[in-house]
Order: sequence, then C-alpha cells, then structure tokens
Amino acid sequence: MEEQKGVLIHVMLAKFKDGTPPDLIDQLIKGFANLVNLTEPMKSFRWGTDLSIENLDQGFTHVFESTFESAEGLTGYIAHPAHVEYANLILPNLEKFVVIDYKPTIVRI
Amino acid sequence: MEEQKGVLIHVMLAKFKDGTPPDLIDQLIKGFANLVNLTEPMKSFRWGTDLSIENLDQGFTHVFESTFESAEGLTGYIAHPAHVEYANLILPNLEKFVVIDYKPTIVRI
Repeated sequence: MEEQKGVLIHVMLAKFKDGTPPDLIDQLIKGFANLVNLTEPMKSFRWGTDLSIENLDQGFTHVFESTFESAEGLTGYIAHPAHVEYANLILPNLEKFVVIDYKPTIVRI
Repeated sequence: MEEQKGVLIHVMLAKFKDGTPPDLIDQLIKGFANLVNLTEPMKSFRWGTDLSIENLDQGFTHVFESTFESAEGLTGYIAHPAHVEYANLILPNLEKFVVIDYKPTIVRI
C-alpha cells in the first residue's frame, strides 16, 4: 500500500432540507468553492449530486470534497473566520450531514 | 463550473463492527482494492481511516473511494459477480455504511 504524501481529503455528505430553493443551493455550493480563495490551506474543491442506483445513500443528496496539504492545514481551515462564517450559512439549510477526513492510500495488488 | 467528463466517483463511508480483527479489516481492504483487477469498469481505488477532529463523523471509521469511467460502467460493476461476492464478505462486518455516487464538478471562481 502506498500513502499519498501530504494530502488530506475532507469529505462531506449532505442532505439539503426539502424546499431549499435551487438558487440558494447553487449559491451555497459556489460559497463552498470560494473557500479555496479565502482560506490558504484549502487546495481544491469538487462536488456532485447523488447518482446512486443502489439505494444505499441514506437520503444524502450532495458530496463535497476538498483537499488540504496537511492535518495542520485542515485545522487552520476549520478555525478560519471565512470557514466559520460559511458554516453558519450552509448548516441551517441542511437536514443532515456527515464529515470525514482521511489520508488516501492507493492500493496496488 | 466544469464537470469532469466520463468520471463517476463511488464513495463509501463505513463503520466496522467493534471487535472486527485488524487483520480481517486489512484483508477486506485489499479485497476491495483487488476489484480493480477483477472488474473492468473499476479504474482506481483509494481509502483511508477517519482522522476528523470536528466530531461530525457519526462514527464512520473508513472511507473507500473508487472511480468509474461512466454510469454504465458502475452499473456493470454493481452487478459483477466479483463485486457481489465481495459485498457478501464485507457487509456482515460492517455496523453501518452509506454509499453515494457522483460526477465531480470542479468549481473555479
């Protein structure tokens, strides 16, 4: 197994509350993406809506995935005022969410 | 926004049952990785354990992320005997899991 050096992936699964206006969802996604510009440790961002056909998604509607160069970077991001402000914008619109961070290991067999 | 063409990401968050032997967990992770060799549509695999410090992980302990070239590829993978066999090996060892698939969109602002 080979661990990718210096990369930490921050995964958030979220379900927006029913009735959240699509325009607001778009705006919140752009706000999330803009944290790449506002917080130095956040290096990239990608997202998508659930396309699962296995019915194992537990109602989550969106995935947000951002990358950081280190655990220290992620810690700095979490405490960053721009992140705190953004969290206060998105969280009231979510019915539920889960966040997990991991250092990716690529396995070659 | 820019959607990455022809890439579908399959994200699984899992919590192994308490007491699952670490050797068995290692073996199951290698088995997951080996699906890259056994199923043509699965193109890559990476995984990691939860390092989150925000206490928003809802007890999930592992992330498994695999990529597929298309939705059709993912459908083929799900039905593939090697995947079905593997699912029957790992699922009895999981306390809970969630699976979500998405086409990643990179946002540049």
